[in-house]
Amino acid sequence: MENYQALLARLAEIGYLSTAAGLLGWDQQCNMPAKGTALRAKQLATLGKLTHEMFVADDTKRLLEEAEAETSSLPAKSDEALTLRVVRRNFDQSTKIPSKLVAEMAHAATESHEIWVKARQESDWKTFSPALAHLLHLTRQMVDYLGYTAHPYDALLDQYEPGMTTAQVTRVFDELRPGLVELVQAIAGAPPIDNSCLKRDFSEEKQRSFSERVARRFGYDFEAGRLDVAVHPFCAGFDRTDVRITTRFDRNWLPCAFMGTMHEVGHALYEQGFDPADDDTPRAGAASLGFHESQSRLWENTVGRSQAFWNVFYSELQQHFAPTLDDVSLETFYRAINQVEPSLIRVEADEVTYNLHILLRFEIEKALIDGSLAVDDVPAIWNVKMQEYLGITPPNDAEGCLQDVHWSEALFGYFPTYSLGTLLSAQLFETALRDNPTITTDLEKGEYTSLLGWLREKVHRPGRRYLPSELVEHICGEPAQSRSYLQYLNTKYRAVYQLS
Amino acid sequence: MENYQALLARLAEIGYLSTAAGLLGWDQQCNMPAKGTALRAKQLATLGKLTHEMFVADDTKRLLEEAEAETSSLPAKSDEALTLRVVRRNFDQSTKIPSKLVAEMAHAATESHEIWVKARQESDWKTFSPALAHLLHLTRQMVDYLGYTAHPYDALLDQYEPGMTTAQVTRVFDELRPGLVELVQAIAGAPPIDNSCLKRDFSEEKQRSFSERVARRFGYDFEAGRLDVAVHPFCAGFDRTDVRITTRFDRNWLPCAFMGTMHEVGHALYEQGFDPADDDTPRAGAASLGFHESQSRLWENTVGRSQAFWNVFYSELQQHFAPTLDDVSLETFYRAINQVEPSLIRVEADEVTYNLHILLRFEIEKALIDGSLAVDDVPAIWNVKMQEYLGITPPNDAEGCLQDVHWSEALFGYFPTYSLGTLLSAQLFETALRDNPTITTDLEKGEYTSLLGWLREKVHRPGRRYLPSELVEHICGEPAQSRSYLQYLNTKYRAVYQLS
Repeated sequence: MENYQALLARLAEIGYLSTAAGLLGWDQQCNMPAKGTALRAKQLATLGKLTHEMFVADDTKRLLEEAEAETSSLPAKSDEALTLRVVRRNFDQSTKIPSKLVAEMAHAATESHEIWVKARQESDWKTFSPALAHLLHLTRQMVDYLGYTAHPYDALLDQYEPGMTTAQVTRVFDELRPGLVELVQAIAGAPPIDNSCLKRDFSEEKQRSFSERVARRFGYDFEAGRLDVAVHPFCAGFDRTDVRITTRFDRNWLPCAFMGTMHEVGHALYEQGFDPADDDTPRAGAASLGFHESQSRLWENTVGRSQAFWNVFYSELQQHFAPTLDDVSLETFYRAINQVEPSLIRVEADEVTYNLHILLRFEIEKALIDGSLAVDDVPAIWNVKMQEYLGITPPNDAEGCLQDVHWSEALFGYFPTYSLGTLLSAQLFETALRDNPTITTDLEKGEYTSLLGWLREKVHRPGRRYLPSELVEHICGEPAQSRSYLQYLNTKYRAVYQLS
Repeated sequence: MENYQALLARLAEIGYLSTAAGLLGWDQQCNMPAKGTALRAKQLATLGKLTHEMFVADDTKRLLEEAEAETSSLPAKSDEALTLRVVRRNFDQSTKIPSKLVAEMAHAATESHEIWVKARQESDWKTFSPALAHLLHLTRQMVDYLGYTAHPYDALLDQYEPGMTTAQVTRVFDELRPGLVELVQAIAGAPPIDNSCLKRDFSEEKQRSFSERVARRFGYDFEAGRLDVAVHPFCAGFDRTDVRITTRFDRNWLPCAFMGTMHEVGHALYEQGFDPADDDTPRAGAASLGFHESQSRLWENTVGRSQAFWNVFYSELQQHFAPTLDDVSLETFYRAINQVEPSLIRVEADEVTYNLHILLRFEIEKALIDGSLAVDDVPAIWNVKMQEYLGITPPNDAEGCLQDVHWSEALFGYFPTYSLGTLLSAQLFETALRDNPTITTDLEKGEYTSLLGWLREKVHRPGRRYLPSELVEHICGEPAQSRSYLQYLNTKYRAVYQLS
């Protein structure tokens, strides 16, 4: 196994450089002084170039081929075979696209991002559309190099959800759509929930300490992480020993920092939970973006917005912010934190409406990629779909089809992972409760060890050994589906909104 | 100039990786969670190995040789020639020592550092001395590879003060010693100063805001830097656009954070002041450690502990911490902040006694390197010299010859730079006042632009173009000397202590 070991050693070195770059990125968003931007860009470009060169080098290729030969007689489910499958996928993806096209794409994405910032400010799609058309042109070239069997969008999806096809996503989303639209309409007919109690004055310091307390209770290890402030919150994991989360505070909107932190804690628990035996190997990583999102959604929503959670924590919260919430009952608070309201902006959407924002984007970008939709027609179709799914129409493109950064950076195929993750969170939670009924009673007591333990074993420790579809089947005994999520939403929100 | 440009581009890339490692080091001391230590060590080792390999590579050597040929007809004072002189010095130093010996030294230093930590805890020199003897043995091998003309210690000194010789340092220190000892003795005969007003309760938040205010007044640019907390304060400059300082707070010892921050601000002003035209070139850097220290000492002591400074800032300080210092007069405060008292620990020493701590270390390590002193005799000679220079004898080795980290990490030749820098601060300041008399009146008004402007022109913007000895001559019209510092100390402290 000499070549296999040599390959792993080489990949570990590349990994140290990548996580060094990761730290530079974290620092850029949390600490870096304003004038440091240019140097940081050069440092990151150098590290990126170097790690790419080291990864696609002939030496790596030779080691990979020899390691594959060396391990060819091992079972397909051996760690060695599973590890090499991950490396082979990444190697092929990194080498299929000519570096000239990669550079051209990076350049175009940087330019179009700047154009998008301006277009959004001016709410003018026409400013952005030529840049988007160019990105789509380059993306289709990349798709041709990457290859696909059924739909060109498959090649893009595959970058974030290895092995997942457009047909699979379409099937799952088609199952989801009618049920969601129906629930949104039912809620729209019910008396609205007043969430003004969440808009009182909550000091940043107290928001922070309460968020940290709950993060600890969920199992986040502050000895292997930290909480900082960032404009666009994120989780940055370098390896399982250093997984940092960020949040932002709004004195007059309690869910911003609190629910946001629980979301990042979900991501972080995944990364802190990789198998120590997988340290410094390609196996230590998330199965997919969807799996990552399933963890953040599970802790933020399934746990963090549940009746069981607030039954335990609401009196703690009241005491913590006393006397701000003294006159607000548990029921009022619980309903407020679960208010559903169709809105224009995806990142501000609630559990029920969120996925409709994604479905709309998935349908549009799929059509942009296969050429069945023209770039100039995006605003019109966007607004039609917003009306159809959510019953509202954006007053302008800034609050409509120009709101998200993704397309300006050529991140096509990324959006669906948000919904796949959300659906998966319910499917996993349902399976967890079935596998270990103690979890339900533990959650009612504010104990999270049994739930985290199940996730550690089933989701976190397997890391990147399996394709997401294999892992879902393996854990749940069936493919990814929408049924669990629709059932979860219906049970919860029909109660919250007292629907029949 | 094609090869010259290619060489610079290559060195710039190496520089980006080095400053990335610098950021990882900063993060380790300011932010990194406890469990991240092992990953950080691997990241830093990988970056260190890579930058070293890239620097000593045959490609670099060829480019350097061709760039030297290409620029051979340019004047010796051209930027190109000065740049290549810096690169050549570094290249030769990096390639002279066999990598096997470098690795052996790194390993031995790590081990002996751990042994030293334990030896200091137990105050037991005998535990440490075999490790030190081994480091000295390896250091002498390194010295032989590096080469020297007069004294083996020259080769070590040269790493921190390029071109400086043991004979030069000895001459300067010999000039300094009698005057210092005499002043210490004179002060010992005077009534002691009461500095208890500095030991009152000063909130960390107020210490921070006052330190930041003065840092801004001195000219530190917070858009190109930031202030954080670290156990062992330091300044980390990546390039002139990102120069971070750190401090530590002691509620009951005002000078700790305040004077400490002014010290780091001095270092930072140097790094923020490199010539923008030198960005991404080997010219952007400090002339030497001594020059670096001259800037920190100048702002901390020559400015920050001066009568002129406190005449302006004391009432601000009183208001800032009101009512804590309401009953303390300016005179009492000024004398307190300039208390002189022979003490055991170097890092806590005042302006007058500090250099005697360094002289003692210089004499001992010089003798250890040339073999005229045995490792086992260090405690005895240390205590004799402490008595001779400062009139006190350490009660144990932990507070004597085991107090500093330097020897445990084989940093021989480093200590003298502290004193060379201190001496230089006075020599530079004297020259500045002579060159531009406005500086004196500006300082009396709390205006620092003219002093900083002079330093920018004379010290900061030249960067690494000149050897320290050339730069001193160039700025001051004479070599480094002790006269200015002795004169500064005598004028100031004979007044503070009302000596005849």
